[in-house]
Amino acid sequence: MGPVKRLLILSIRMTGKTLRVALIQLSGFPTKREAIANAQNQVRIAVKEKGAQLVILPECWNSTYSAGEFRKNAEQIPNGDTSAALSKIAAELGIYLIGGTFPEEDGGRIYNTCTVWGPKGEFLGKYRKMHLFEMDIPGKCTFSEPSTLTPGNQFLTFMIGDLRIGIGICYDQRFAEFAAINRQLGVDFLVFPSAFDTYTGPMHFELIARARALDNSMFVALCSPARDTTQDYVAYGYSTICDPWGRVLCCAQEKPTMLVQDLDLNMLNEIKTQIPVLRQKRLDMYELNVKK
Amino acid sequence: MGPVKRLLILSIRMTGKTLRVALIQLSGFPTKREAIANAQNQVRIAVKEKGAQLVILPECWNSTYSAGEFRKNAEQIPNGDTSAALSKIAAELGIYLIGGTFPEEDGGRIYNTCTVWGPKGEFLGKYRKMHLFEMDIPGKCTFSEPSTLTPGNQFLTFMIGDLRIGIGICYDQRFAEFAAINRQLGVDFLVFPSAFDTYTGPMHFELIARARALDNSMFVALCSPARDTTQDYVAYGYSTICDPWGRVLCCAQEKPTMLVQDLDLNMLNEIKTQIPVLRQKRLDMYELNVKK
Repeated sequence: MGPVKRLLILSIRMTGKTLRVALIQLSGFPTKREAIANAQNQVRIAVKEKGAQLVILPECWNSTYSAGEFRKNAEQIPNGDTSAALSKIAAELGIYLIGGTFPEEDGGRIYNTCTVWGPKGEFLGKYRKMHLFEMDIPGKCTFSEPSTLTPGNQFLTFMIGDLRIGIGICYDQRFAEFAAINRQLGVDFLVFPSAFDTYTGPMHFELIARARALDNSMFVALCSPARDTTQDYVAYGYSTICDPWGRVLCCAQEKPTMLVQDLDLNMLNEIKTQIPVLRQKRLDMYELNVKK
Repeated sequence: MGPVKRLLILSIRMTGKTLRVALIQLSGFPTKREAIANAQNQVRIAVKEKGAQLVILPECWNSTYSAGEFRKNAEQIPNGDTSAALSKIAAELGIYLIGGTFPEEDGGRIYNTCTVWGPKGEFLGKYRKMHLFEMDIPGKCTFSEPSTLTPGNQFLTFMIGDLRIGIGICYDQRFAEFAAINRQLGVDFLVFPSAFDTYTGPMHFELIARARALDNSMFVALCSPARDTTQDYVAYGYSTICDPWGRVLCCAQEKPTMLVQDLDLNMLNEIKTQIPVLRQKRLDMYELNVKK
């Protein structure tokens, strides 16, 4: 374990109430090999130059977001090349890494899957997109993940120090229940690798991030790929981090961007005390239950 | 039944896919008598000059919003003076009227209650605020409804033609479950008489209106009193109507204002078809249940 690594792990423990997060709004590349090399390089910059303790990558960053190509690009997790590369860079830098998503193959089925890696490069878990993207806005956005993907059936949370982090993917964010269940699981920071389209993005991307954060007294991050108008499916961009008051802390635009943001974790107790909606729910009148 | 009344009821039936709504952001008055006379006059203008089919009044419009004064100002419903005045103006104009809220006394308990009136002046029902306002943001906003009010235990919906309308009051809007249950009850237009404070108003009022509308593919209206800085509790204003896409259709500012807006009800099917989140919920994974 090198000195940089020890220093960073130490700082996660010592600062306690602040977490420095980097969201990397990656650009696409013609080959997976180039995409991986670029991602590793960007993660290295986020940590070595910016001091990030947790790095977050976008949805479907290592290959084309295309229903027809998910199977071709799919890998096993955590045994594939992309997993190996993510594990390696997390261990090299001694950081936590939310590896965005890429297509996963398992038993002949294809999933849109997010991996999470610890400071020793250990595999902390994977989350398979639970709500598959299916939209039909004629002339604006038509896409069907269910035509080729299988939905996931499990939530994923993990800890950095005292902070519990949850994972969702893109379309999941449209479902208030999804964020509310993560809140029930103790999540204070919900992260969505998320490639919204350019029609609903301007209408809904920031709105949903802010609403999920406010309603659940949690931090929320959306990490999009950069906009690439040469693709069939053009991602919106505008990666965003919101605080538990539903305020935007930082936001990218279209281009490849690295957002680096200190999360002041004291805000969590602040809003839970001052606007105590979490304890004011009328659980005698209604209840949200997890069934699995 | 006069000709104006018949004409308006007919138009509700005939236009079918459009509903003209007026939100009246009322100013306060020193006496209840003046407040009632002003409200009646404003409703008359909304209908006779603007052609509104449904008129909506704000939270606690007939007296001071003050925990210490709720009991003094409370009336029985539907037997009190304010109820009589609302019934009378609805019948005179042949319209639907969501009578905002005023304090209700029943069996020694005090509620923050919204009444709904039909075109013959008939009492269609009352809704008692379910989530009582309790906030403690030092130096910004501190208020406790539970110290003097009792919470309600029932949802209220009613129909205008094919459109089901639901009622919530102010703080209720902070609870995503509340709007989601109204959606389960078939509500396509959720109306909140709503006096937010001037600290959280700018941060949250529009955000919540848009989020509830988008998440539930429904129209949402928030109707606030006008801002009156001579009061202990200063209402935010900024009454707002949102469409099911989560877009703001119209919004007031601080002053007394009448918002008149045609709701294009075709939008409801449009978004339910194009972004079909309502049928894409993972009800095998989670479920929101009403317990009463």
